[in-house]
Amino acid sequence: MNGAESLVRTLVDGGINVCFTNPGTSEMHFVAALDKVDGMRCVLALFEGVVTGAADGYWRMKGTPAATLLHLGPGLGNGLANLHNAKKANSGAVNIVGEHATHHIQYDAPLTADIEGIAWPVSHWVKTSTDAKAVAKDGAEAIHVASTAPGQIASLILPGDTAWNEGSGPEAVPVIAPRAKASDEAVRHAARLLEKGEGTMLLLTGEGVKERGLALAGAIAQKTGARILAQGSNACLQRGAGRVPVDRVPFPVPQAVEMLADVQRMILVEARPPVAFFGYPDRPSVLTQDGCELHRLTELSEDSIDALERLADAVGAKIEDAPVQQPFTPEVPAGALDPAKIAAVLGNVIPENAIVVDESVTTGRNFYPFTAGAPPHDWLQNMGGSIGYGMPVAVGAGVACPDRKVLALVGDGSGMYTVQALWTMARENLDITVVIWANRTYQILKGEFNNVGAGNPGMKAKDMLDIDRPDLGWVDMAKGMGVPSARIDTCEGLMAEMRRGLATPGPYLIEAVL
Amino acid sequence: MNGAESLVRTLVDGGINVCFTNPGTSEMHFVAALDKVDGMRCVLALFEGVVTGAADGYWRMKGTPAATLLHLGPGLGNGLANLHNAKKANSGAVNIVGEHATHHIQYDAPLTADIEGIAWPVSHWVKTSTDAKAVAKDGAEAIHVASTAPGQIASLILPGDTAWNEGSGPEAVPVIAPRAKASDEAVRHAARLLEKGEGTMLLLTGEGVKERGLALAGAIAQKTGARILAQGSNACLQRGAGRVPVDRVPFPVPQAVEMLADVQRMILVEARPPVAFFGYPDRPSVLTQDGCELHRLTELSEDSIDALERLADAVGAKIEDAPVQQPFTPEVPAGALDPAKIAAVLGNVIPENAIVVDESVTTGRNFYPFTAGAPPHDWLQNMGGSIGYGMPVAVGAGVACPDRKVLALVGDGSGMYTVQALWTMARENLDITVVIWANRTYQILKGEFNNVGAGNPGMKAKDMLDIDRPDLGWVDMAKGMGVPSARIDTCEGLMAEMRRGLATPGPYLIEAVL
Repeated sequence: MNGAESLVRTLVDGGINVCFTNPGTSEMHFVAALDKVDGMRCVLALFEGVVTGAADGYWRMKGTPAATLLHLGPGLGNGLANLHNAKKANSGAVNIVGEHATHHIQYDAPLTADIEGIAWPVSHWVKTSTDAKAVAKDGAEAIHVASTAPGQIASLILPGDTAWNEGSGPEAVPVIAPRAKASDEAVRHAARLLEKGEGTMLLLTGEGVKERGLALAGAIAQKTGARILAQGSNACLQRGAGRVPVDRVPFPVPQAVEMLADVQRMILVEARPPVAFFGYPDRPSVLTQDGCELHRLTELSEDSIDALERLADAVGAKIEDAPVQQPFTPEVPAGALDPAKIAAVLGNVIPENAIVVDESVTTGRNFYPFTAGAPPHDWLQNMGGSIGYGMPVAVGAGVACPDRKVLALVGDGSGMYTVQALWTMARENLDITVVIWANRTYQILKGEFNNVGAGNPGMKAKDMLDIDRPDLGWVDMAKGMGVPSARIDTCEGLMAEMRRGLATPGPYLIEAVL
Repeated sequence: MNGAESLVRTLVDGGINVCFTNPGTSEMHFVAALDKVDGMRCVLALFEGVVTGAADGYWRMKGTPAATLLHLGPGLGNGLANLHNAKKANSGAVNIVGEHATHHIQYDAPLTADIEGIAWPVSHWVKTSTDAKAVAKDGAEAIHVASTAPGQIASLILPGDTAWNEGSGPEAVPVIAPRAKASDEAVRHAARLLEKGEGTMLLLTGEGVKERGLALAGAIAQKTGARILAQGSNACLQRGAGRVPVDRVPFPVPQAVEMLADVQRMILVEARPPVAFFGYPDRPSVLTQDGCELHRLTELSEDSIDALERLADAVGAKIEDAPVQQPFTPEVPAGALDPAKIAAVLGNVIPENAIVVDESVTTGRNFYPFTAGAPPHDWLQNMGGSIGYGMPVAVGAGVACPDRKVLALVGDGSGMYTVQALWTMARENLDITVVIWANRTYQILKGEFNNVGAGNPGMKAKDMLDIDRPDLGWVDMAKGMGVPSARIDTCEGLMAEMRRGLATPGPYLIEAVL
């Protein structure tokens, strides 16, 4: 058994049965091993940003890592932006990055690059295998790292000869420690802050914005008079009718500051202290008021459900008292599309148990209240801020959850970064409905231009913000990648096409022209 | 004048009048400055791999750097693969990478990343500006670095506040040193090796494969009985009727070894000692025979034209004696396409002074002999081996040389990595004819699978090498990005559509189905 086969067996035995790939010469032995080892589903993408974004989406839905297969430094580089997003989402992934054979690296051939240097900024763990006998053990270590709470990026670099030389057989993955418990003092102090009632807020993310975490937090808030709020972005927020509703920290700084103005005590459940997405000349970076006490209940790696249960006990809150969202359906809108009307359409069509991957950017700022009463669904957001995350994450979610409907809501500017994801959706016949908000501009930047104090864009600046020359034809691009599609520009059309896309298996793209 | 304006003025005053951009919030002041400063052409791309590849192509044709504008670490990451290619091509470029305002970095907002860490593996110089007063000086230094022979990648990281605070006015670029001269001993020793006649080879790249370099090398070879050969890949090789013809080191190791089998003395003109593109289990990394003497006439940073002139003098060679390529046109082929017939079509249609950007991979291995007698043209190749370089480099070449025809020959697998380049071609109405070789497979990997000793791919492996499920519709994708297009599958069709594409201004895409 060569090194590559020992690695693939280690991955499969270690519970990794999906590999998102874009291989090259140096990964051919890994690819060959797939023929010999059962149990690994390989999903090809035509660009590495799709590969790494899919691994992010897979983790978010499964909580276990997928592998990626990438071609040397530049292949890893192409996957860098979505690895950045995955790292910020605390998604675990095992990257297998091919490298020249060890004896060949010294010759500085065209593809030679500092792969470890490229990997480190987006990885928690980087290792280059030194020989074929070490590969299986290195692979097992990578799985261990990737699976360790809250999820980490492990990048294993695999020189060609470590794949083709005789290996040592598969290795077992070391036992993965369960999430640590929050300290008694952390729970006790949170309870003390909650006793002060109004002016106390639970800021939630991670397990704290999943169904049970929200139910517990909602019960605590109900009992104590505290407020609950979710981070601005969350890897997977569970919401909809029958669940405890939660709002998020808004993107615009003035709105965020206003929302947090009365918060004197903030209890952080995995969440980071709230800060602005960007720094601006005349706006604060820290969104809480001076003097607001920040108290961490759980780190990202800790067991928030346990901590919230203990906190609920401490304050005498009962989960059945948590106020849950009543089902509601917004009035059906008509006529030309605008963000509010789009939100109303969404509130009418999101199906039960859907996975909504939201990269709507400006178009989506109204979506939350209108969709709050839809059937229960998961809402996935961009955690690293690098646009182009949406369609790849939808690919990963679709692979992870073949029995669920995936709805990818994507701005046209964002969608173009990783447009190649459409082809993988078609190849794998993933049940994903993609809606492209075609406003034909980097709309967010028009606001940001003013927010940073640059005034109003002139002709040359505007030219860098508009993407309407030429208009992008999403229906044609989807067709070119094998995804059926339709273009609409009315609420009636959007409603009908979304229902069609969600009702039929396989991918479907809707170009919604604003 | 704020820092951003001082930087843009420094760039324009320093001779940089093209900026390829994909900006975000942190670059808005730079964008705003474009409205205030004349003389900078900004070219927007929808993905950063297009931005950085375009800068590579621009340098190759102009020999002076363009700027790029990239959005924090992930934006730089998206441009990494083509920066790798540009660095390996010895292309100079000035990357302006936005960063959070200095006071905001500490808060680890979503887009915060180790930008310097991401930049270093693909840069010769990396600097983060510390305040607005320093920005102009840092920009001048970046231009100086980028312009220093043979061309370097300078990455200047620009925190938001260094752009919006009061700057210090534009700075002049320090004097750029001319290329150094080769030592007398380097020339004398080369002359001694040439006296031995047969068994001596001049291996050329850089200025050595431009018209005058080849003429000098050809004269030297003619006089001494030595052979000339070009590197396997070259940034810009000038060829065609009336120029000294030169073959290249082949990609397959056995052919390369055979071509170099009789070489006992190799004189390197900017070229690297020839090595295999990849390492293989049973093939050498070094392509020359044991005992072959390698002698460096010029480093990449040295003046090869001067050195070759001195060497010609030393051996008594006269440039007018160099044997030049006679014009010839291959017989017009007919019927279904195959690589040899495609090459014959190219030999019939390449127009005078064309810029051919070759990313044909396997389809193109026959192109060289059939196109040798075409009218004089430039041939650009992938220097870093990361596919997806072709269409972006064509964009840069088209911007640099609006009066020349650009012909981009691109494999379908390669084209997909940076397919967004088509939109920029349409927006800027660049005179580029793109031909996509649609063999619907990563054909090179099928050979490499065997070359690395993995035998023949089984069903699962083959699935990672074929991209025919679904077939890519290039005509549709081009239409979706505003580029007129046609699909053909015969020699007659290819000939007609290439003539149409080359005859009409603006971009045109031909999907050639093999």
